Amino acid sequence: MENSLTFFQVLSIAISALAFATAFWLYRWVSSQPSSNAKVAEVGQLIRSGANTFLAKEYKTLIRFCLIASLLILVFLPSPIWKDNVLDNVVMAIAYIAGTVFSAIAGKIGISIATIANIKSAEAATKGIKPSFMAGYRGGAVMGMAVVGSSLFGISLVLLLTGNTTALLGFSFGASSLALFAKAGGGIFTKTADVSADLAGKVEMGIPEDDPRNPAVIADNVGDNVGDVAGMGADLFDSNVASMAAALVMAASLGNPEKNIAMVLCYAAIGLLASIIGVFTANMKEGGDPTRALNTNTYVTTAIYGILTAIATYVFDFNWRIWAASAIGLLVGVIIGIATDYFTNDNKKPVRAVAKACESGPAFTITSGVSYGLISTLPAMVGIGISALAAYKIVAPIGAGGNEVAYGMFGISMAAVGMLSIVGMIISNDAYGPIVDNARGLVEMGDLGDKALEITDSLDSAGNTVKAITKGFSIGAAGLTVIALLGAFMTEVNDAIAAMGLNIEKITGFDVTNPTVFFGLLAGAAIPPVFSAMLMLGVDRNAQRMLAEIHRQFKEIAGLKEGEPGVKPEYDKCIEIATAGALKELIPAGLVAIIATLIVGFVGGVHAVGGFITGNIVSGLVFALFMSNAGGLWDNTKKYIEAGNHGGKNSEAHKAGVVGDTVGDPFKDTAGPSINTQITVVSLVASLTATLFLTLSIF
Amino acid sequence: MENSLTFFQVLSIAISALAFATAFWLYRWVSSQPSSNAKVAEVGQLIRSGANTFLAKEYKTLIRFCLIASLLILVFLPSPIWKDNVLDNVVMAIAYIAGTVFSAIAGKIGISIATIANIKSAEAATKGIKPSFMAGYRGGAVMGMAVVGSSLFGISLVLLLTGNTTALLGFSFGASSLALFAKAGGGIFTKTADVSADLAGKVEMGIPEDDPRNPAVIADNVGDNVGDVAGMGADLFDSNVASMAAALVMAASLGNPEKNIAMVLCYAAIGLLASIIGVFTANMKEGGDPTRALNTNTYVTTAIYGILTAIATYVFDFNWRIWAASAIGLLVGVIIGIATDYFTNDNKKPVRAVAKACESGPAFTITSGVSYGLISTLPAMVGIGISALAAYKIVAPIGAGGNEVAYGMFGISMAAVGMLSIVGMIISNDAYGPIVDNARGLVEMGDLGDKALEITDSLDSAGNTVKAITKGFSIGAAGLTVIALLGAFMTEVNDAIAAMGLNIEKITGFDVTNPTVFFGLLAGAAIPPVFSAMLMLGVDRNAQRMLAEIHRQFKEIAGLKEGEPGVKPEYDKCIEIATAGALKELIPAGLVAIIATLIVGFVGGVHAVGGFITGNIVSGLVFALFMSNAGGLWDNTKKYIEAGNHGGKNSEAHKAGVVGDTVGDPFKDTAGPSINTQITVVSLVASLTATLFLTLSIF
Repeated sequence: MENSLTFFQVLSIAISALAFATAFWLYRWVSSQPSSNAKVAEVGQLIRSGANTFLAKEYKTLIRFCLIASLLILVFLPSPIWKDNVLDNVVMAIAYIAGTVFSAIAGKIGISIATIANIKSAEAATKGIKPSFMAGYRGGAVMGMAVVGSSLFGISLVLLLTGNTTALLGFSFGASSLALFAKAGGGIFTKTADVSADLAGKVEMGIPEDDPRNPAVIADNVGDNVGDVAGMGADLFDSNVASMAAALVMAASLGNPEKNIAMVLCYAAIGLLASIIGVFTANMKEGGDPTRALNTNTYVTTAIYGILTAIATYVFDFNWRIWAASAIGLLVGVIIGIATDYFTNDNKKPVRAVAKACESGPAFTITSGVSYGLISTLPAMVGIGISALAAYKIVAPIGAGGNEVAYGMFGISMAAVGMLSIVGMIISNDAYGPIVDNARGLVEMGDLGDKALEITDSLDSAGNTVKAITKGFSIGAAGLTVIALLGAFMTEVNDAIAAMGLNIEKITGFDVTNPTVFFGLLAGAAIPPVFSAMLMLGVDRNAQRMLAEIHRQFKEIAGLKEGEPGVKPEYDKCIEIATAGALKELIPAGLVAIIATLIVGFVGGVHAVGGFITGNIVSGLVFALFMSNAGGLWDNTKKYIEAGNHGGKNSEAHKAGVVGDTVGDPFKDTAGPSINTQITVVSLVASLTATLFLTLSIF
Repeated sequence: MENSLTFFQVLSIAISALAFATAFWLYRWVSSQPSSNAKVAEVGQLIRSGANTFLAKEYKTLIRFCLIASLLILVFLPSPIWKDNVLDNVVMAIAYIAGTVFSAIAGKIGISIATIANIKSAEAATKGIKPSFMAGYRGGAVMGMAVVGSSLFGISLVLLLTGNTTALLGFSFGASSLALFAKAGGGIFTKTADVSADLAGKVEMGIPEDDPRNPAVIADNVGDNVGDVAGMGADLFDSNVASMAAALVMAASLGNPEKNIAMVLCYAAIGLLASIIGVFTANMKEGGDPTRALNTNTYVTTAIYGILTAIATYVFDFNWRIWAASAIGLLVGVIIGIATDYFTNDNKKPVRAVAKACESGPAFTITSGVSYGLISTLPAMVGIGISALAAYKIVAPIGAGGNEVAYGMFGISMAAVGMLSIVGMIISNDAYGPIVDNARGLVEMGDLGDKALEITDSLDSAGNTVKAITKGFSIGAAGLTVIALLGAFMTEVNDAIAAMGLNIEKITGFDVTNPTVFFGLLAGAAIPPVFSAMLMLGVDRNAQRMLAEIHRQFKEIAGLKEGEPGVKPEYDKCIEIATAGALKELIPAGLVAIIATLIVGFVGGVHAVGGFITGNIVSGLVFALFMSNAGGLWDNTKKYIEAGNHGGKNSEAHKAGVVGDTVGDPFKDTAGPSINTQITVVSLVASLTATLFLTLSIF
């Protein structure tokens, strides 16, 4: 069989193209679904144009940030330009820009389809659960295909054109930059709008949640799309690219690099293929259970991936140990997802216990929710640890005779690649959630009837349950990826030592009894809490600004308060404020993480940075898991009470549940998931600037 | 000059005796202060006997636990008894028991004086601020002297009798066992009583906070004493012993062990001497500022310690580098304390911002408080990291020629000894808080007048402010101590390898790129969140039990609800329930930490344990700082609002502030400070069982 690297690069590009074709077909399919209700169309159009406003503004800010970053890259990375390697720097800068552009395009496609699919799903709900589900699911799948197709396409293209794996770190850093804006910015946006819409509408004015008089109501709906669709997509684009980049950087530094690289690309391509097949198997009978339909896809895709990679390993004579590492990654991902589900599912003890605690008031809602959120970190932490250990131990023997460590770290990176192999399916399931959530809102606002409401309710609830599983999956994968990035950092440092002919011993690890490493460890562990706190405080400040605008509109627009016909609030003003504020608030938080990395590196050198990355990973994972799971738990607790338990809606327990949910919202939608991106950014900044720390650090 | 080890052992014992004499003198002084009000005496007596009930019950449970633990030690530690070293095991078991007994005695003394001093301070408040302050402060100082005297006495005695530093780990483990019961158990007790007294009294019955009809009201006051006095004392006894034990274990393994050990004892003795002097300089003028008086003592003691140790270093020809390490530890402790104060002081931005957020409701109180709590971890984490790094770098060169690492770790342990050198002063200041807090309650219940109330209010407020500083101090010291214990663990492992003639390479460190270490790191990082969550859930469960008892009493005791004269609730029943429940709830949490250490050790071996300890330290410090500071911040926010800001008492902001305070209570009084103890317990269990992991682990 043809076994050369080029074959697999072309294969990857071909399967990426297939993903794009699938996305295009699904896009057309969703668009061709019927829609006729004028009211639904009007509100849908407002949401669509609001989301586009946010994206346009975000991308505009990003271009400026990107220009500065790429200029810095051009001058300093991979090593200062005055050291006569101009071409490398140009390649790196271009790769960086490509990383942002590819991710941005995928985000744009996702938003575009999500704001069509919500309308289609809403109207289809009048016909039955199956067409409504299919519209929502296939809309989500467009996002899934676009994200994974463009990430694999980008990686393969950069590799094909440059033949340089270090350039992949540039591409990955570009993806991280965008993810930081999209995920953290989107997270601040969505919570800003949510909080101020609730405060101004429900609390101050006493009007219902989705009252069109509320100037923030459209911003609130836009938030679901920019946070949960575009933000989530950029986050997973970033994780996926980072896992591949880490694996490829290490693959290139091992014996027989061409074959290793070929294998990484082959597995990634098969993962994408399995996701494409999985998307088309997604189906449900009229009256079926949407949760089961979504989970079935995941298991089908997992099985297809396992079988196809085994065949490929046999046919192309890849190493079975590496196959096993990737399979373990995927398996543990599924297990972590199931464990996460336990803590957020309203059929299980934690949600029930917190709901009971709500009867004693908001303080107990918070302490019990925090407690279960904290406990929920254990299975995932141990799971990530075990999968990393197992992958390492399985792959390390390949390097017998001095190269065990490098191969072991490569094994961990392959576990991450395996865990993320079905990311196309994960994104499809994840994006389905906000689409049917929006659809539910449109059904209500468009008066499409009780049956349709019931259907979209059940679709929405399935989205919440599945989300917990996919979220655990993506945090687990991020954990493995960043461990792999720690290996990539070490590889980069040692490559630089060799390339520059420095008289320094190669780094063989980061020893915690080395006080420089320990110092880095403690400093790195403090960054995720600070980062997430800055985002949460940013939401508070931004909400204050938006509230002021809402008050202004109620005061200055005659007849708005009274709901006179034809008088409409200036929805776009609120969207602009949420957008501008979100971007303004996220930048300091992002800079804190980046600058802290640079300070630690320039002061303490590479050992301090190794500790810093490690501390950052460890505490970042704990806080990401804690915040995401506690937030999900409170959300479902509130819904459980609203379903008529412990007094139901408007009871004292419900009020306490609302407080829990309001605390949980920034936990799970702003701070928690952004920590993933923060960890990746820190790891990449460290790897990219490794050379600088070697030559310029104080100690 | 006489420079032999025995001289310093005798010196330590002599200064410990001086501390006991001081404690005795202060005890007599406080007891001899006038008291005459019958109502104050009655309530005071109820609190006193309640606290003694708790202690008696706690110690009874502890004896059982202790017997099992010492039996296990006798059989297994320091190495299995069938390996023919029975005497070592007997010594270890006795040292363990001694550790619990010495700490228990100090706790008993502390409770005894605290429940006298509160009465004296209350009645003295009718005469002026000076006598009231002095009664409170000198009461606290009895605890300070008793704790530090008995810890230094115990350490010196064990060393003098056995000449075996490993036995010190047994003594230290005994102290940790007691601390686990006293701190976590006391923490659960105090919050159980607090929560159920509030729920039953204020919420359900609508009676005031300290209404004597409420069966839980005495338990609530008892809680302050068992949690904040006895618990805090046991915690710092534990930290102090652990820091000395870690330093002594390492000192014994270095060149010239006798002189090193002498130096550790000498510095510790000087610290105690400085604290004794500091206690007697504590004074204030009538109309003076109590906060200033308390802080002045701290600075005076710090300065005396610095000067006296410098003189001793010169006279006895100790190494100046080690002196510098201990001085840096102390200095950084003070700096961390000041930084912590920023986040909890109501004159600073964080408390003001959270108070403002209270106006928007409880959810914002929580999110903003959580945010500032998270940010507050940064200065302490960086401070601990820097002091460890500096101490290591300063001391390591002594071991030039192959022993740098061991000396460096010794340097870190000396920084911990330095930071804790003024622990006598810290405990005195800390115990002052709950005494004057109780005094304030007694003034109110005994109707001692507005002037006295105003005075005790200002004394109480000073206690809160100073507490923040001392709390930062003690967490910082615990951080350094456990880093030193990581070094002690490595020393124990290598000693065992040598002693048993195993064919294993000596351990030179724990490398995070070793997946076994990384696995341990992730697992260890998950333990503090799980441990603290279990304690918080324990409070909830226990409060439910106590509520049921309160309801029973109101139902069954005729005339109680109506407040008929002569009808009294059965206070002791509530105290018994809180006590039994507290002990029941803390045991699973403690066992989780201990068993997890053993599982990781027996499965992954010493490298996994090294990672486990490290992860435990890193995440434990972050959560201890976060929870303690967020809790303190909410407490002061509520007080700030009650002082008339943002609408003052009974405003919407105040209600939100109460929710924050109720969440913060278990954070700062149950979970947060218990994490310190948990970290120490894990480190000590690991060090003690190191030999077992070497011979019995699976991998």
